[in-house]
Amino acid sequence: MAAEIVNPRSESADRTGREGGTEALDSFDPVDPAFALHRGGKMAVQATVPVRDKDDLSLAYTPGVAKVCSAIAEQPELVHDYTWKSSVVAVVTDGTAVLGLGDIGPQASLPVMEGKAILFKQFGGVDAVPIALDCTDVDEIVETVVRLAPSFGGINLEDISAPRCFEIERRLQERLDIPVFHDDQHGTAVVTLAALRNAARLSGRTLGELRAVISGAGAAGVAIAKMLVEAGIGDVAVADRKGIVSADRGDLTQVKRELAGFTNKAELSGSLEAALEGADVFIGVSGGTVPEEAVASMAEGAFVFAMANPNPEVHPEVAHKYAAVVATGRSDFPNQINNVLAFPGIFAGALQVRASAITEGMKLAAAEALAAVVGDDLAADYVIPSPFDERVAPAVTAAVAAAARAEGVARR
Amino acid sequence: MAAEIVNPRSESADRTGREGGTEALDSFDPVDPAFALHRGGKMAVQATVPVRDKDDLSLAYTPGVAKVCSAIAEQPELVHDYTWKSSVVAVVTDGTAVLGLGDIGPQASLPVMEGKAILFKQFGGVDAVPIALDCTDVDEIVETVVRLAPSFGGINLEDISAPRCFEIERRLQERLDIPVFHDDQHGTAVVTLAALRNAARLSGRTLGELRAVISGAGAAGVAIAKMLVEAGIGDVAVADRKGIVSADRGDLTQVKRELAGFTNKAELSGSLEAALEGADVFIGVSGGTVPEEAVASMAEGAFVFAMANPNPEVHPEVAHKYAAVVATGRSDFPNQINNVLAFPGIFAGALQVRASAITEGMKLAAAEALAAVVGDDLAADYVIPSPFDERVAPAVTAAVAAAARAEGVARR
Repeated sequence: MAAEIVNPRSESADRTGREGGTEALDSFDPVDPAFALHRGGKMAVQATVPVRDKDDLSLAYTPGVAKVCSAIAEQPELVHDYTWKSSVVAVVTDGTAVLGLGDIGPQASLPVMEGKAILFKQFGGVDAVPIALDCTDVDEIVETVVRLAPSFGGINLEDISAPRCFEIERRLQERLDIPVFHDDQHGTAVVTLAALRNAARLSGRTLGELRAVISGAGAAGVAIAKMLVEAGIGDVAVADRKGIVSADRGDLTQVKRELAGFTNKAELSGSLEAALEGADVFIGVSGGTVPEEAVASMAEGAFVFAMANPNPEVHPEVAHKYAAVVATGRSDFPNQINNVLAFPGIFAGALQVRASAITEGMKLAAAEALAAVVGDDLAADYVIPSPFDERVAPAVTAAVAAAARAEGVARR
Repeated sequence: MAAEIVNPRSESADRTGREGGTEALDSFDPVDPAFALHRGGKMAVQATVPVRDKDDLSLAYTPGVAKVCSAIAEQPELVHDYTWKSSVVAVVTDGTAVLGLGDIGPQASLPVMEGKAILFKQFGGVDAVPIALDCTDVDEIVETVVRLAPSFGGINLEDISAPRCFEIERRLQERLDIPVFHDDQHGTAVVTLAALRNAARLSGRTLGELRAVISGAGAAGVAIAKMLVEAGIGDVAVADRKGIVSADRGDLTQVKRELAGFTNKAELSGSLEAALEGADVFIGVSGGTVPEEAVASMAEGAFVFAMANPNPEVHPEVAHKYAAVVATGRSDFPNQINNVLAFPGIFAGALQVRASAITEGMKLAAAEALAAVVGDDLAADYVIPSPFDERVAPAVTAAVAAAARAEGVARR
């Protein structure tokens, strides 16, 4: 299964500005099965109404279409019922933080955006269109997305490097009345929280009893930290490559200063390794490597979520020596933390009720619903469902729709 | 059949600035068949590769997709083969000149843009995505389209009011290396020229022997005038609501000054009606009404193309009293001038050879190929094929692709 962990790229961008990640560029190889599959692209548009004869056309196009246009001009909310707006999401990127490849530009990012689009369709029944932008300036990206928003029911931001991704999302959420969701942040956070909830349940503990350490302060790390705090984690500290993000550091960006304000109650400082001593949870979204000694120093019954791809921060074999629950971003080990468990259902639920935003409550509801799919089958090697578990998307969709209603952002 | 005549709206916008057209706004009526058909929209996205299991996903998404991204980053031209870029066109509007409805805004224009998108697919096999922009400033539209262009193989401009449409198209053509085509101008012009070629052939005359008068100096009128001149028309005069566009008028916009420079060799001035006296061809793209006396004053064997919808400038019954060939924009009369005869094949041909532009030669080739479909069946009531004639799109596609190669704009 494909892992959706955006952390390596986010952290990479965070660390090195616009530099690429660590993965070597592959060369063109037309006989490689991946190239063969990608030939001609991976998606298409289809008509959902007949266009066989002039009677069909007189309804779907002129003169019939004019009535529908006029009605929307008079009653704008009709656009949701009589166009595809409320079923289609723009998958927007600037190509600056693509997979582990870094800043490869908009056109080279298109295969990922098409992939994302077909996952939206396959798993959530949501139509999605790749929009890879030829600009990287925050103002330009924001203005461009605001201008094209009338055509879409939601905006999924994708593979935009930190820290720009935070400001772009915030400003778009302020300007638009449709859901704007940076999946590299929140999709990862939702799935991580779901797995952590189940790991805690398995060990008979509450989130409030756990102290977590996150390696990586890029898009995913920041979002996971926020979400764990909202969910009631006992304490969480976040480390970037210079060590624990703490208020006494003088080198923090605005985002990390905010992070320092709501994390790290224990007032740790210094290295990631030091913070791991006695910690209950390790969450790796950094792409680095954690020494075995540091894993060994964690508390009894620890959870190790080493989500970097393709190389987890702690190899699962090593992690299993010390940890009670091990998760990765890879499909070839149990407990894969994969964003596709979240984003299709989250958007499907939001679109279903025409939510004006995706709130914290909706994301928490998504994590709970995702965790609940595991049910009584809960085990150390099954704290999160498979992406191909057909119960997942309907459960997430229903929970998100209900939460949108409860939070007052649903418009039907 | 649905007529694609954009002239009423263009001319209306041209005359009244941002005002709407003459068609009354209809109210919402959910039991109307047009509304019933539009429920939920008219289009969807589909995956063209399987996403059934983790092996599928490992090719279509991570890790397989990374190879394709890397290869495109190294060899940018691979984007055409390994994404859907070269099969997808953005249908871009700002909603300022929609059908006869005028400036109804981006969201209310969406049903037309979706209709256009499904016509692209149905008739040309071209994927198309509606992009209705929430801005009307020329600079903003140009910048926005430039920024989103990496995702698309072509840009179809639609329902943007004159004279802004001219500058937007020109600037986008300068900035982008993919086809940019304002269908309201050139699609209409191509189909008009095709019908006129056949009308001339039927009457044993060359275009050079004909003097034409166009009513309407909006998007369609200007484009038709240019194309007729390029095709070798004897003379053509264009009238706006103030009369014939001639160099001695002091009230001309930049576009109309240019128009005056290459039309009206006869140096006519004054009213449309005066210009029609002795004229061989009337082309109506204005939405107004031409008095019967003026039609009666045309030359023997005249051609009357009264293309306004829903009300032709000259009713076909009246036109037939005086004219040898009569065409309209309506599907319920013979010889319907319908843009769907042109734009799907024009884009399909341009995309097939990855043309960097749609040149005058490609448009002329499209008109010739479209005219040729009629062949030996040529008759006064059959100077242009039906939109549902399955020979049309392949003929136009092949002619446009060949012309792109001949003109040096093909990239494969």
